[in-house]
Amino acid sequence: MIHDLIIIGAGPAGLTASLYASRYQIPHLLIGSQLGGAIVWAAMVENYPGFELITGADLAQKMIEQVKKFGAEIKNTSVLEIKQKENIFELKTENDEIYEAKTLIFATGTQRQKLNIPGEAEYLGRGVSYCATCDATFFKEKIVAVVGGSNAAVTSALHLAALAQKVYLIYRKKPLRADPIWQERAQKNSKVEIIYETNVKEVLGDNQKVTSLKLDKVYQGNEQLKVDGLFIEIGGQPGTELVKNLSVELDGEGYIKVKPDMSTNTPGIFAAGDVANAFGEFRQIVTATSEGALAANSVYQFLKGGKKCPD
Amino acid sequence: MIHDLIIIGAGPAGLTASLYASRYQIPHLLIGSQLGGAIVWAAMVENYPGFELITGADLAQKMIEQVKKFGAEIKNTSVLEIKQKENIFELKTENDEIYEAKTLIFATGTQRQKLNIPGEAEYLGRGVSYCATCDATFFKEKIVAVVGGSNAAVTSALHLAALAQKVYLIYRKKPLRADPIWQERAQKNSKVEIIYETNVKEVLGDNQKVTSLKLDKVYQGNEQLKVDGLFIEIGGQPGTELVKNLSVELDGEGYIKVKPDMSTNTPGIFAAGDVANAFGEFRQIVTATSEGALAANSVYQFLKGGKKCPD
Repeated sequence: MIHDLIIIGAGPAGLTASLYASRYQIPHLLIGSQLGGAIVWAAMVENYPGFELITGADLAQKMIEQVKKFGAEIKNTSVLEIKQKENIFELKTENDEIYEAKTLIFATGTQRQKLNIPGEAEYLGRGVSYCATCDATFFKEKIVAVVGGSNAAVTSALHLAALAQKVYLIYRKKPLRADPIWQERAQKNSKVEIIYETNVKEVLGDNQKVTSLKLDKVYQGNEQLKVDGLFIEIGGQPGTELVKNLSVELDGEGYIKVKPDMSTNTPGIFAAGDVANAFGEFRQIVTATSEGALAANSVYQFLKGGKKCPD
Repeated sequence: MIHDLIIIGAGPAGLTASLYASRYQIPHLLIGSQLGGAIVWAAMVENYPGFELITGADLAQKMIEQVKKFGAEIKNTSVLEIKQKENIFELKTENDEIYEAKTLIFATGTQRQKLNIPGEAEYLGRGVSYCATCDATFFKEKIVAVVGGSNAAVTSALHLAALAQKVYLIYRKKPLRADPIWQERAQKNSKVEIIYETNVKEVLGDNQKVTSLKLDKVYQGNEQLKVDGLFIEIGGQPGTELVKNLSVELDGEGYIKVKPDMSTNTPGIFAAGDVANAFGEFRQIVTATSEGALAANSVYQFLKGGKKCPD
C-alpha cells in the first residue's frame, strides 16, 4: 500500500498538516516520536490566539484529539531512514516497519541544542536538565541557573522562580532576546538574577549531583557560582538528518529551504514548522500551524496534478 | 499623541497582530468596525487547531478577551480616511476622531461580494441574506437556495439544511470548489440538492418577500425555482478603499501586495489576513493569525530600526 502522504513529526505543524489533509480527504499517515512536539515542554502558552493561558501539553492534547477525530492514522514512533525510489518515498521506522508514500511533509521541528561543556553529559538528570517544565519540582527552595536569553529561557526562569529559592539567568549577550514582556517580568521578579555577557564553561559536582558552575568571567568576586541545578535553554538544531539522503536543500543554518507554498527543491517533499526556513528566525505556534495547513494544501494540489510547485 | 502602531481591522489577523504587539510592548490601538471580523458569521469552525468544533462567534470572543487581557486599546468604529504626513499616518474615524500613528497594519479583510442582479437589493432582509448563521432561523421548514461553491457556501447550505425543508445549492461551475470533506457532506445530505453550471439571473417576489429565482438555464423543466430565501455566498472583495490614497500596491485581484514579512511597498504600512496576498487564494484562520503575528514582529523590527523591510 502506497500512502498519498506521510507527515513526519507530530507537533503543531504536523498536526495541522494532518487536520487539513483529512479535510482534503488525502489518505495519510502521521508519524511522530513525540506526540505534540516541542510545545509539550512549554509551561505557559499565552500567544496562541483562542487560549488566554494554557500549558503546552494541554494545547498539544487538544490538537491531537482533533486530528484523531478527523480520522488521521497516527504512529507514535521514529523514522530512521528514508529512501527515494523513483517517485515513491520508502520510510523505515525504529520498529522496522516500512511505509511508502507519494509525498512527504517534514515537520520534524528542532532538537535541543547542548552546551557541549565538561560535566554537562555527566550530570544529566542529576542537576542538568533541558526541560524546566518537566524538572522544576525537583528544585523546590533550591538555587538553579538557566542558560539562554530567548523566550524559552526566560519563561523557564520564571517558571522555576515559582518554586526555587533563587534563579540565575545566564546569557552570553546583552540584552536578552526574549520578547519585551518576558524581559520585564524577569527583571521584576525578585528571585531572578540576570548575569549578562557570561558563558558557563563547566558543570561541577560532587559525583552525586551538581554543586556549582564555572563561569568564563568573575561574577560578584567569584568565577564559580553555587547552584543545585542547571537548565539549558539555548535553542534548537533543525531535525534534518532524514532529508540528507534526499538531496533536499538546506539554508546556511541547516533549516529546510521552502518556497512560499512549503514545497522544497525535491518534487513531492514539503516542509512546515520549526524545521523549515519560511519566515527567518520567527518560529511560533501560529506560524507552524499556518505552514502545516499550507503544506497540506500544496500536497493536495500536487497530487491532483493541478498545480506544479513554482520556483 | 502619536501611536507607535494602529491596527485597522479586528478579525483573527488584527487581533493576533495586537496580541503580539502587546507582547513586544508596542503601544498601539486596534480599530475595527466588526469585532472578531468575518469569522463571527461562521456557524462551524473545525479547522482551527485546538478547537474540535466551535462557532466563529465563540472563537472570536475568546480571541478578543485574550487581546484585551494583554492591555490592547480597542476602538469599535470605522476608519473613514487616512492621510500620510511625512512619516506619520493620520486616521479619521466615523465619529470624527483623529488618530496618528508611526506604523499601520491593515487587517481589513474582505467584504461580501454581491451578485448585482435585479431584486437582490430590493429583497435584502426580506428573503435575501448574506449570512446563513444570522438568518437561518427565519427559514425553518422553508425552501431556500444558496449561491456559491466555496467552503462558506457549502457550510451555509449544511447549516440551513438543519432547519429548512429543502436547500438548493446553485453553483456556476462543476464540481464545487469546497474542500472534499464538505462536498461529501453536502452530497450525502438528503435535504441538499446541488444545481451545477447555473447562475441566478433575478430574484423574484410578491413585493413583500422572495417567492422564486430566475435561472439562466432550465432546471427540471422550469427556468424559475420556487424558494423562500436566497443566501449569497460568492466570496469577498478585499477591503482596500482606505489604502488607495497611500500609494500601496495591490495585486491584479485587488489584494494588498505583501512581502514575506508582511510589509508593503510603503514604509511603515503592513498588511495581514484576508486583505493581503501572502499565500495566493489560500485564506484561512491559521494563515490570518500567522500573518498578524508576523506583521507585528515586522513592525517591532521597523520601529527599532534594526531591520529594514527587504524587497
